[in-house]
Formats: sequence, structure tokens, C-alpha cells
Amino acid sequence: MFRVALFGCGRIGQVHARSIAGHDDAELAWVCDPVLPAAQSLAARHGGRATDSVTRVLSDPGLDAVVIASPTPTHIDLLTQATLAGKPVLCEKPIDLDLARIDACWAEIAGLRPFVMMGFNRRFDPTFTNIHRRVADGEIGTLRALRLTSRDPEPPPRAYVAASGGLFRDMTIHDFDVARYFLGEIAEVQAFTSGDGHEMLTAEGDAHQAMVLLRARSGALCTITNSRSCAFGHDQRLEAFGDNGMLEAGNQTSSSVRAYGPGGTETADPYLKFFVERYRDAYRAEFDEFVRAVREQRPPSPGFADGRAALALADAAAESAATGRAVAVSPALTDGVLT
Amino acid sequence: MFRVALFGCGRIGQVHARSIAGHDDAELAWVCDPVLPAAQSLAARHGGRATDSVTRVLSDPGLDAVVIASPTPTHIDLLTQATLAGKPVLCEKPIDLDLARIDACWAEIAGLRPFVMMGFNRRFDPTFTNIHRRVADGEIGTLRALRLTSRDPEPPPRAYVAASGGLFRDMTIHDFDVARYFLGEIAEVQAFTSGDGHEMLTAEGDAHQAMVLLRARSGALCTITNSRSCAFGHDQRLEAFGDNGMLEAGNQTSSSVRAYGPGGTETADPYLKFFVERYRDAYRAEFDEFVRAVREQRPPSPGFADGRAALALADAAAESAATGRAVAVSPALTDGVLT
Amino acid sequence: MFRVALFGCGRIGQVHARSIAGHDDAELAWVCDPVLPAAQSLAARHGGRATDSVTRVLSDPGLDAVVIASPTPTHIDLLTQATLAGKPVLCEKPIDLDLARIDACWAEIAGLRPFVMMGFNRRFDPTFTNIHRRVADGEIGTLRALRLTSRDPEPPPRAYVAASGGLFRDMTIHDFDVARYFLGEIAEVQAFTSGDGHEMLTAEGDAHQAMVLLRARSGALCTITNSRSCAFGHDQRLEAFGDNGMLEAGNQTSSSVRAYGPGGTETADPYLKFFVERYRDAYRAEFDEFVRAVREQRPPSPGFADGRAALALADAAAESAATGRAVAVSPALTDGVLT
Amino acid sequence: MFRVALFGCGRIGQVHARSIAGHDDAELAWVCDPVLPAAQSLAARHGGRATDSVTRVLSDPGLDAVVIASPTPTHIDLLTQATLAGKPVLCEKPIDLDLARIDACWAEIAGLRPFVMMGFNRRFDPTFTNIHRRVADGEIGTLRALRLTSRDPEPPPRAYVAASGGLFRDMTIHDFDVARYFLGEIAEVQAFTSGDGHEMLTAEGDAHQAMVLLRARSGALCTITNSRSCAFGHDQRLEAFGDNGMLEAGNQTSSSVRAYGPGGTETADPYLKFFVERYRDAYRAEFDEFVRAVREQRPPSPGFADGRAALALADAAAESAATGRAVAVSPALTDGVLT
Repeated sequence: MFRVALFGCGRIGQVHARSIAGHDDAELAWVCDPVLPAAQSLAARHGGRATDSVTRVLSDPGLDAVVIASPTPTHIDLLTQATLAGKPVLCEKPIDLDLARIDACWAEIAGLRPFVMMGFNRRFDPTFTNIHRRVADGEIGTLRALRLTSRDPEPPPRAYVAASGGLFRDMTIHDFDVARYFLGEIAEVQAFTSGDGHEMLTAEGDAHQAMVLLRARSGALCTITNSRSCAFGHDQRLEAFGDNGMLEAGNQTSSSVRAYGPGGTETADPYLKFFVERYRDAYRAEFDEFVRAVREQRPPSPGFADGRAALALADAAAESAATGRAVAVSPALTDGVLT
Repeated sequence: MFRVALFGCGRIGQVHARSIAGHDDAELAWVCDPVLPAAQSLAARHGGRATDSVTRVLSDPGLDAVVIASPTPTHIDLLTQATLAGKPVLCEKPIDLDLARIDACWAEIAGLRPFVMMGFNRRFDPTFTNIHRRVADGEIGTLRALRLTSRDPEPPPRAYVAASGGLFRDMTIHDFDVARYFLGEIAEVQAFTSGDGHEMLTAEGDAHQAMVLLRARSGALCTITNSRSCAFGHDQRLEAFGDNGMLEAGNQTSSSVRAYGPGGTETADPYLKFFVERYRDAYRAEFDEFVRAVREQRPPSPGFADGRAALALADAAAESAATGRAVAVSPALTDGVLT
Repeated sequence: MFRVALFGCGRIGQVHARSIAGHDDAELAWVCDPVLPAAQSLAARHGGRATDSVTRVLSDPGLDAVVIASPTPTHIDLLTQATLAGKPVLCEKPIDLDLARIDACWAEIAGLRPFVMMGFNRRFDPTFTNIHRRVADGEIGTLRALRLTSRDPEPPPRAYVAASGGLFRDMTIHDFDVARYFLGEIAEVQAFTSGDGHEMLTAEGDAHQAMVLLRARSGALCTITNSRSCAFGHDQRLEAFGDNGMLEAGNQTSSSVRAYGPGGTETADPYLKFFVERYRDAYRAEFDEFVRAVREQRPPSPGFADGRAALALADAAAESAATGRAVAVSPALTDGVLT
Repeated sequence: MFRVALFGCGRIGQVHARSIAGHDDAELAWVCDPVLPAAQSLAARHGGRATDSVTRVLSDPGLDAVVIASPTPTHIDLLTQATLAGKPVLCEKPIDLDLARIDACWAEIAGLRPFVMMGFNRRFDPTFTNIHRRVADGEIGTLRALRLTSRDPEPPPRAYVAASGGLFRDMTIHDFDVARYFLGEIAEVQAFTSGDGHEMLTAEGDAHQAMVLLRARSGALCTITNSRSCAFGHDQRLEAFGDNGMLEAGNQTSSSVRAYGPGGTETADPYLKFFVERYRDAYRAEFDEFVRAVREQRPPSPGFADGRAALALADAAAESAATGRAVAVSPALTDGVLT
């Protein structure tokens, strides 16, 4: 069995615990959280030993790998320690909210040939990977335009917003990664945001919605549409437009019921509520790929450089929204540090 | 110009008046109805001279053709007179409610090589003809099963029901014709009906819904689903299932709007309300084919024999619903008289 | 933990093994099959002890329940033995292919107040239960018409067909149960079948497709469409039509991708291939309900009487197809034996 | 009858000729084109007298109105002459490619209280007006985000491109108008374009695709996606997202057929090919509104100011694409001249 330690027992930590416990070939060896009862409760449900000691976990010689799902400010420290201990890491996004810290981290660990896979779950969603493969197979010819839609059902709690780094670094970062997954490196970013009169978000200096334009180095264009609220569920769509056609990822429902009445026809259910429901299979597939990559000693993908590049795009979007200028993303910014 | 006389100014007469008046190459020469003001009113809108005299119309040497859209009991007499006057006829379904009268009519006119086209409008609907052509082109391989759905928005007025000959002869007759259009001759019929507790229909001895099974001589099977009421519009669907796939005619709306909200997603408009809206293009195409067939001296299709065959199927369904037995439809019944 | 013995290691046995092993609160205690290596192989994958001895399994005092997924001819014997041993049973459909044997079985076990739940998995499908609940909640008013579509991707192997009891008893039996689930008792049945020129099925005296009409005692009508082949996957649809609207269960795909090109637009994936994929969640929910019903000492639903009633409808349909007559289903036939 | 003169006999002139000729209450009185045979040919088909003399047309005292569908450089002159002659005008977009000329034109005619309606046909499309009305009725709450998609099936001929003023002024101008129709005045514009390696377009200094972001004064955001090519027809979509839901205008097909096969399911037809097919009803409704507005002496909408505002947005988008800066659209630029 592939023995895994999980750091962090919040919402996303629980998602990973389920993926690990449900994996045919892996088991939850440790659940680590500074709030010990939280670790104990999760371990009771999914197995593993509970602890609040990082050292204790990382000194377990039988430990095969580490999943970091703790709060963002702890990522770099845990990632560094795990790498120094020789453990492969699957780290939730973002690596950190500060590019300088990320680069400093890399400077420290690069020589160790670290195995750091980033938790960009959408790269493993069956619908998105289906489109990615078909684009690669040439089904729609050269890819010219990508359109991404991500709308959350409702804004997170105020404390979460305050620590999140803002919409671009917290939410759009997934879309930036998907854009790179489909288009490769991005050359330039433009963005508009709006508070939409949302009191809490405005008080926190954050946006309620955003629209972003990307120009890829390949010449392809991309638009991203985000909102922190959506009345009809978790709106998660992708549209890849090429010379010979288009592939589209539609939203998903929990049943295939359609309703017909005097007020309207063909009514589907509201969409799956949020990422836990929408990306359940993606999280499983992500963890499965992590296990296989570790075992086969393949470099992880998406890796550390991808985590850094997505944050660089978030920074660029924030700058564009603030200044009203297209912001160029230099090659060095996106991957130079890691070449 | 192709000069046409219209008999009958009711709802279906008005539909034909619009098709004639809107045709590039035809004009409404006469509008004939025993209720003269009705004829005058329709002529005022779409052109032509109004009259209540059938003789006057048929003795017009410049008249090119006749459209019969009067009440069913008058069809045979008008059809016979027009044929004797040498005028091509487009006759609304059914020819009559009595097979014996139909056969007697045919005995009278057969020697005149009559041009009688039946108003089975669905054979000209762009969606149905698209499927018919693709089936003929082999897109789905051998056609094995056909499913037809026809639901009207609400029952007709009591007087109409009383004179209609019942659900099978009035409403299902369209589906019987569509079945023959796709499957050729039918060998056997089974049917169930239900009053569904509808007071007026039950008082008139008529059904509110029906389900019919057909076995074609080819071996293909067919099911027809009818209802006199439908809360969401005129439900008109067709499904052709073959060895290699399926082609389906979906319902239609007046716009391509979809709505999304907390209660449901992808909600389309209610369907087009009734046959006047749903089959607008079909009526136009039907009349256009009538004009072309007359001009090119082609035999009309669907013709008199098709009108008779559809009624024979309605009779068979009524017998099956009454007796609980599958009713065989002998070749002679469906087309012998006309071979 | 709820300890379960599984009889039968074929395709459907494997489906149940997965449901049992994946259940939070149950475990596979025994895997029993006359072919011991088959039992050993399944036990190796999902846990439990392998055996070919029914007696040994049923004499395990720690055994909580039994799942029967062996060939149909063994059902009655296993069901009887398990009941005599005091074990609750979840039995795959059909109970048997012979109503007389079913009634004899019941006569033997009725006094034991047996717990026998039938494996009509579709009653537990999230899409079907969603519609069932909404119909019960009155969303579409009185239910007037039900339409069921079940098409398998391809015919089973010849040996399976030979032992299956024919299309109605093997395949349509699911639809008969769904019809009863939605409409209650059925009064009358009509049916047509066709061999469609399929050589093997014809050689076995079986049909390739069937269309069935049902009249419920409530007056509602139902049509069932079956085919042993379907080019585009496992076609599984249900349409419930009522006075105020309609609810429809559409087919399902493995992703929400839509494709657009010169040849067509909005193209979805082929449908989920077969019942193992399509009803994965239904099998899990069925087993979960089994566990809960046993624990809460509730009578199982669907129960033995439902298993008998579905077979009675299959017999009636076969008789109708053979004789061309509507076949009345007497109350005694459908549930009298169990009242 | 409402007597109308048509200037211009090209593709768009022919569309208008059909709308005029097909209107119950209007007729084509004059067809005017410098190429007299073109005018004669169109007049032969749809009625009216053919001429190459603008003066002769405008001096017809019985002429009720003028439709300008000639090449863009002639619009201002014809519009001015017609206004001086006291004739109401329906003018195809754009008024001109030069804002200064537009303002000079207005300075000349403003005192005459001119009736100038702009041919932004999409404001009259049944699907778009349905959404506009429902947004106004509050169905989705406050409108926060608008997404417009316009993709033409293929690039226009080189000569057309050369004279068009570029993608933004020729094609996106429709989207700019739709944005204003839904969102009111626009404050700021950002845009990216790409040549996508298209030789002819690149040679003409034009773009193959564009993505545009708009910020409305209301705070709402908008994104526009354009392409000069689309493999699956005329891609024309609109999505209005608000606090309580979303309304979407989907693409349209010529039939409601869906196809199912081993390669995919639910395949709709390719979309309606181009604007002539897609906006047929919109052109009719536009002309109908023109007739009614003239008769009821209502100010036309969209009017001259709307034509100017859409061009101002096109200029701003071109500037943004060239400079990489968000371009503010001052109030004076969008409507000051006309207040």
C-alpha cells in the first residue's frame, strides 16, 4: 500500500481524505493538523493516525508521500520540510501568495530534485481531459480561442476572503492554470473587475466578478468570466474553438431529469452545487495520477513551475485591473526560475 | 399565375388561404363557403372572389385547382364535383369517415384519372422530411422502430368532437399517415384508449388519450401516443430507430432562449402552441408541392389511396380498442381498391 | 459491520460485490459459487471467504444477510434455504421463470415471515426516484401516461438467451416493475415483437425488439419499447406525462462534452454503455436500502410479491404477442398469493 | 400603403427588399442603385420602379420613407439628402467610418428634427427581444454580466474587407450596439485581436478574431467574442447573467432533428448559415417597427445617436487593441453630440 500523510483537515483536506481512503492502492497513514481534535475526527472516519506534529509525520520511514491541504501560508514551509525529508508532495494551490517567497523556496529545494505536484484538480476532470485529448488529437484543428466560465454559488466567509489574496489569486488561479493547460504560455493579460455593490467583498477590497482576456504566445486568445455568486449552482464551463469546430464542457446535474410545464420545457436540475460535488471524480483522478507518478518516478504534472506560473498570471490580472493596462507576462516570470 | 379556389373558411381554411396568398406563383381566385360573409371576410384579407356557389367556382374555365378545407361530410361531394370538372384537388384529411362511401366515391371517379392530393401536412414538415430523407439515405441502417407522439394542447369544442369520428379518425389519422410514410403498409394494429375522467369527451363517447401499436408488413414496429390535452404546448415528436442509430424530431419553440435559476436550468420556452404555429412551413411546402405536381403532371403524393389507408388504420385501431384484439389490416383494405 | 454472503460470481454478482465492499457499514463475509476459483478470485478482490458450500455459509451464525446473484434456476432454492436459516435476502430478478414454482415457494416460506427484497435496481436510480418523488408530490398532476424505453447495446450470448426465458421475462421484466412502481397494478397487456431478421435470436425462438401497451387499473396507460441492440449505448428513458406537465429521464454520458463541427452541432458522447455503468449508483443505493431495511426491521420493497407480479406481466405479454389478444391480468395473478 | 424607396441592391439591400415586399402594409416604390441593371433586376422581383437617380426618388411627393442599404461611404450623403427632403430614414450600420464626419452630418441636420433609425437588426430578433424584456421585467435580478458571441461562417471577400473599416467597425459594431441595448452607456473598453495566421486578413491589416471587455457605467461587465470564421455556421449567442439567474440565447437550426449513432448522440443540425437566414425575422420586425414609428411619429430607436455610439466603441476597441490600454469612453463621445 501507498502510505500517505495528509496535512490540513478543512474542507479541502476532507476531500483529499476521501480520495486517499477510497483509493484501491493507498491508505491514509497520518492526519496532521495543529488542531488535534480535527485530525482525530478525520482519522476516525478515514483511517490513519492523528497528530499535530509535522516532525513526527515526516520522520516516519514508511511514509510514501504527503498531501498538503492546510492554509496557504503554511504551504511553503510544509512543502520544504517534506522535500527535505525526501517525501513526494501533492500541494493544494496556491503555493503561496507571494512570488518572491515562491522563488526563494525554489532556490532552497531545487537542488534536491523535488517531487512537487500541484493540486490543480481541473486538469483531471473527465470532461476537461476529454476535451484536452480531442484538441490534441486535432479534432477541431488549430485551437484559436478558449472561453472559461467559473462562477461559485456564493462568496466564501469574510475571514476566508481576507486571507485569500483576492479573487484572482484564490479563484481565477484555477482558470489561469486551465488556460495554460490548453494554450501553453501566456504573453499578455487584461482584466476588469466589479464589486457589484457587494458589501462584504467591497469592505475587504475584493471583487465580486471579473472578466479577463489572455493572449497566448501562440496567438490564441482566451477569456475568463468569474463571479463569486451564481443563483443556479457552480457554473463551470469551458469552450475550445478551433479552425474546424468547437468542443464545449457543459455544466452537470445530479440526475438526467427534464421537466415540462406551462411555464417552460426541458428544464434540467440546478447544477451541481460546488466544487466538492462537481469535481469529485477529478480529485480522485488527481490523487491516482499522483500515486502513479511517484511510483513510476515520472516528473509530476502540473508541477511547481505550473503553480508559480498561475500565480504570476493572477498578479498580472490584478495589476491590469488596477491600472487599466494590458500587462505583459515575461517568459522569466512564468517559468524562467525553473528552467 | 396558378389560380386556386378554396372551399371552407374555418381554421384550416384560413391556414390554406395564407399559404395560397403567400405563394410566389399562385393566387386565391375564389373563396367559397355556404356562409357568404365568412367567404367575403377571408377574400378581403387574402384576395379572390367570395361566393357560396360551388357550381360557379367549378365552371370558371381559368381555375387551375381546388383546395377543399370544408367540413368532412362535404369532402366527397366537393372532391367528386371538382374531379368531374377536371380540376386537380388538394383535399384536407379525412376523405370521409366511412370507408364504404370512400370506395363508392373512388368507383365513380377512378376512370377520370383524378388528381387528388391529400392534406397530410406532416409529410411536408421540414423536420420530418429531413428525417425521411436521411432514413432513405441509409443513415441509420434498416428502420426497425418508429415512435410517434402527438398531443394537442386542449380538446376541441364539443360540437367538433361530436362530428369528428373520434380520436383515431380525427387526430391519430395524421400519425397513421406518418407511420405509412416511413414504414409502408401496416399489417396489424393494437390500441388502448382512456377517457382519463374527462367529462365532455366521455359524454361524447370519445377518448382523452390513446396508445397504439402497429406492425408493418416489413416487420418494423411502431407506437403512437396521443392525448387531447398537453400542458406544455403541441407535443409533436417522432423517433426513427434503426440498426445503426436513431433520428429524432424534437419539439419546437418560438425562440432559442434558455433560462437558468435556483429552481432549474436550461429551461426552454413552452412549445409552439398548436398546429397552425407548428406546421406553418409544412402547409406552405404542401401547397407548393401541390402546385408543382399539378404543373408537372405528376401523380400526387400522398394521394387518394393514402387517405383511404389512413382511415382504414383508424377503423382498425377503434376496433382493437373496443375488442381488445389485434386487428389485421388486409392488403385490400389498405390499397386494393386503388391498385 | 453488516456481514453479507454473496451467491454467484458472474457479471451481476461482481456488481453486487462492489456495492457491498464499497458500503461504509457492510462487508463481504462469504463469496459462494459452485465454481470455487471464481469465488476465490472475487473474494481476493473484495474480501470475504470463498466457498462452494451453501450450507457452510448459511450456518454462519454471524452472517447478517444474503445476496442472491446466481443463475435464475437456483434462486428459489437459495432463497428458501436462506429464509429457513433466518437470513434476510436480496434476490436478483427474476425469482424464477415459472409462476407455479414461485407460488409453491411462497407457500413453503410464507409462514416464516420471510424478508425477501427483489433486485429491481431501477427503483433506486437517482433519476428515476427523483421523478417518482416529484410525481408523488403532484408536480405534474394526475399521472396519465408512462413511456419506458430500454434498449441494450447488443444481444447477450446464445447460452444466456437460451436460459433467459425470453425477452419479456429477462429484459422487459425491469420495465414491468418500473411500470408498477409508477402506476400500481396493471389490468391489461398488449404486445408485439419482432425478430428483425436476427439469426441467433430467431434460432432461439426469441425476439429482437418488443413494444408493449399496459393499461393500469387506475386508467393510466403505458408503453414499453425494447430492443436487444442499440448503436448508441444503453438507451434507458422514462417519460411520465400528467395533466399539468411531464417529467422525463434522459440518457446519460460519461462527460458533459458537446462537439460542434461542419457535420452537426451539440453532439454529446455516446450513452453509458450498459447497466453496469448506467446503474452503478442505483446498485449502491439498492444495497444501502437493503441494509437499512434489515436493520430497521421494515418490510422490504420491492418484495417477493413485486417479483411475482413482474413475472406475471411478462407471461401476459408473451401470451399477447403469441395470440394477438389483449391479456387481462387478474388481481389474483398479480398479488393475490401474498395478500 | 406605405411607399418605400430602397437605396442599394447588394446582399443587404436584397434582404430589405424582401422585408418591404413581404410587409402587409408597405410596398417597394423605388429601387435606386448607380448600377441600373441591379436596380432593375431587384425591382422585377419585388416591385417598384428602378432608377439610378437619387434626386428623382427623393422628389417623389408620394414617397413615405427611405431605406439606405448602399455602401457605407454613401450613407451620410443619402441620409442628409433624404432628411432635407423630409423623408424618414432607416439606415444600415454604420452611419460612417469617421466620427468627425458623423458629427458634421448631425450638425447639418439636427435642426430638422430628423427621423433616422439605425439598422441594428439584432434589437429586433425575437430571441434577443425576449431576453431583453425578461431582463427588464426583473426575471434575473440586477444584470451583472453580458456575454456576446458573434462568429461569421467565413471572411468576406478582400474588397469588402478593404473598405470595411476593420473587424471592430464592421462586425463587432453589432455587438457594441447589443451591449448598449442591454447595459446602457459604456465607460471603458479593452480588446485583444489576433490574425490567426489568416493571409488575406493580415495583408489587409485586419484581424481574424477579437475578444473585447466592456465596463458599463452601471458597473456591469461585458465580454464580446468574435471570429471571421466558424466551421459550424453563424455562431450568435448572448448570455445575460444576473443576481437571480441567467438568460441565454442559443444558436438556431433549420430543423429540430437530433441524430444518435456510435460516434455521438443528440447531434443537432449545423447552425443557420449566416445573417440572412439567422436574422430573417429580425429584419422583418425591424422594418415593421420602422413603419409603425414613422406612422405614430415616435422617435426612432435605435436612432442616430446609437449609430454614433456604436462606432465610438469600435474606435475605442481598435485603440485598445493597438495600445494595450483600457480606453475610457467619455460621455460626450457616446451621446453628447446629440443631447
